[in-house]
Amino acid sequence: MADKGWPVCAKSLKGVILDMCGVLYDSGEGDGVAIPGSIEAVKKLKASDLQLRFCTNETQATRETFVAKLQRLGFDISVSEVFSPAPAAVAVLKERGLRPHLLVYDGLVPEFDCVDKTNPNCVVIGDAAENFSYQNLNEAFRVLIGLEKPVLFSLGQGRYYKETDGLKLDVGVYMKALEYACDLKAEVIGKPSTTFFQSVLNDMGLQPHEALMIGDDLVNDVGGAQHCGMKGVAVRTGKYRPSDERHPTVTADGTVDNLAQAVDMILDQRH
Amino acid sequence: MADKGWPVCAKSLKGVILDMCGVLYDSGEGDGVAIPGSIEAVKKLKASDLQLRFCTNETQATRETFVAKLQRLGFDISVSEVFSPAPAAVAVLKERGLRPHLLVYDGLVPEFDCVDKTNPNCVVIGDAAENFSYQNLNEAFRVLIGLEKPVLFSLGQGRYYKETDGLKLDVGVYMKALEYACDLKAEVIGKPSTTFFQSVLNDMGLQPHEALMIGDDLVNDVGGAQHCGMKGVAVRTGKYRPSDERHPTVTADGTVDNLAQAVDMILDQRH
Repeated sequence: MADKGWPVCAKSLKGVILDMCGVLYDSGEGDGVAIPGSIEAVKKLKASDLQLRFCTNETQATRETFVAKLQRLGFDISVSEVFSPAPAAVAVLKERGLRPHLLVYDGLVPEFDCVDKTNPNCVVIGDAAENFSYQNLNEAFRVLIGLEKPVLFSLGQGRYYKETDGLKLDVGVYMKALEYACDLKAEVIGKPSTTFFQSVLNDMGLQPHEALMIGDDLVNDVGGAQHCGMKGVAVRTGKYRPSDERHPTVTADGTVDNLAQAVDMILDQRH
Repeated sequence: MADKGWPVCAKSLKGVILDMCGVLYDSGEGDGVAIPGSIEAVKKLKASDLQLRFCTNETQATRETFVAKLQRLGFDISVSEVFSPAPAAVAVLKERGLRPHLLVYDGLVPEFDCVDKTNPNCVVIGDAAENFSYQNLNEAFRVLIGLEKPVLFSLGQGRYYKETDGLKLDVGVYMKALEYACDLKAEVIGKPSTTFFQSVLNDMGLQPHEALMIGDDLVNDVGGAQHCGMKGVAVRTGKYRPSDERHPTVTADGTVDNLAQAVDMILDQRH
């Protein structure tokens, strides 16, 4: 049950943004599994007058591959509705004329096919997992330390995530490592960056107070959205932990058991 | 030439502590090479009435193996004169009844032979170099996150060091990574820890103001010694960079071209 005050904005709401892993599905072997009720909840939102977008920090696959997986799980989702860090990074790189050295998962590399990577003048790191070897991290470090003005982009800043075989270190950990090594501050692309959330709002043509973010990551989903001026609702699925409800700095505008419950409450309020 | 005020304490000085890599020798292929004049400088100090100790953050070999290398290079050094983080860590582990999970260089493991490592209740990381794989870092992370009160010891906190084939990431980078992943603060054993410098002073039976530290690492050697109440002198060998002389927070009590010059100035002042 939603035991915290539910955001009073539901009647004036014009758009909803959904986190994906931990809200729609749990990752794991193969494609992972859909969280009960979430496929139907997405259908209900699409049938409503609300705009809907999906916002993920997934950086182990291209957006096309990732969306195909969600479709196989039964979700009605298309690539143009999904916002992920890599395409946002490509836009930033082109805008600023930067040529990246990539330290990312093999499956993400095609996202950067259209970017000049010769003679790199910045580093982009994603959730590279096993590619975070000592040699590869050292190589990224040497590129940065050799630049007059080192620029490091981090695709998200997560600490860790959960897979079927246990917890795994996420990109934020290696971002902190390189920040310390080179005495610099990384630019985070993806959640919780305000620029990233704003690009989703721009795509919907909405103001922050007209939109609601639903996610399982209290800091990056809920806190990030709130910092941007949106409401943020937490679900008790995915990486949720009871201690999230006593977090020292972030308090969700509502906490619900799962996406299905959130959607029912939103749609009920609007009728 | 020493272009900064030389510490005025040389007459009242009773002991000198020397950093090793970058002061006595440069590391690289095989045993590395002695820095010109340093073998003779150590001889002069030993022939003087000053006490002499060596203080290193070296954690890729046991103290015995490391000292044997220095002896092969021509230095008159014995194991009992050398202070390094691993033996200090073993003492702390025993005192506090802690059983470590080790993430260190293979060559350092024998230092921990006498320590119970079953069912670990803390993690010790050293300069593990290639052993800092994603899998190994993830394993250390899982040990920490599984503990009710996670304790992380870091053998030093260096950012990087120089070898003949280029710069290499040091243990501090991985310390920051695990600190962020587990939301904790590591306990640093080795330079610049005050406890570590104090153990060297205790061994000499000296007060901080009676001792002088000479090193090439401005923060960990010079700053650490100063924080402990000693004088700290920087050499322009090893990892020295001209920007060290404009460092925002640490100012050496003296900066000299090399160890030989420092020793001549100290001994000249005492006659």
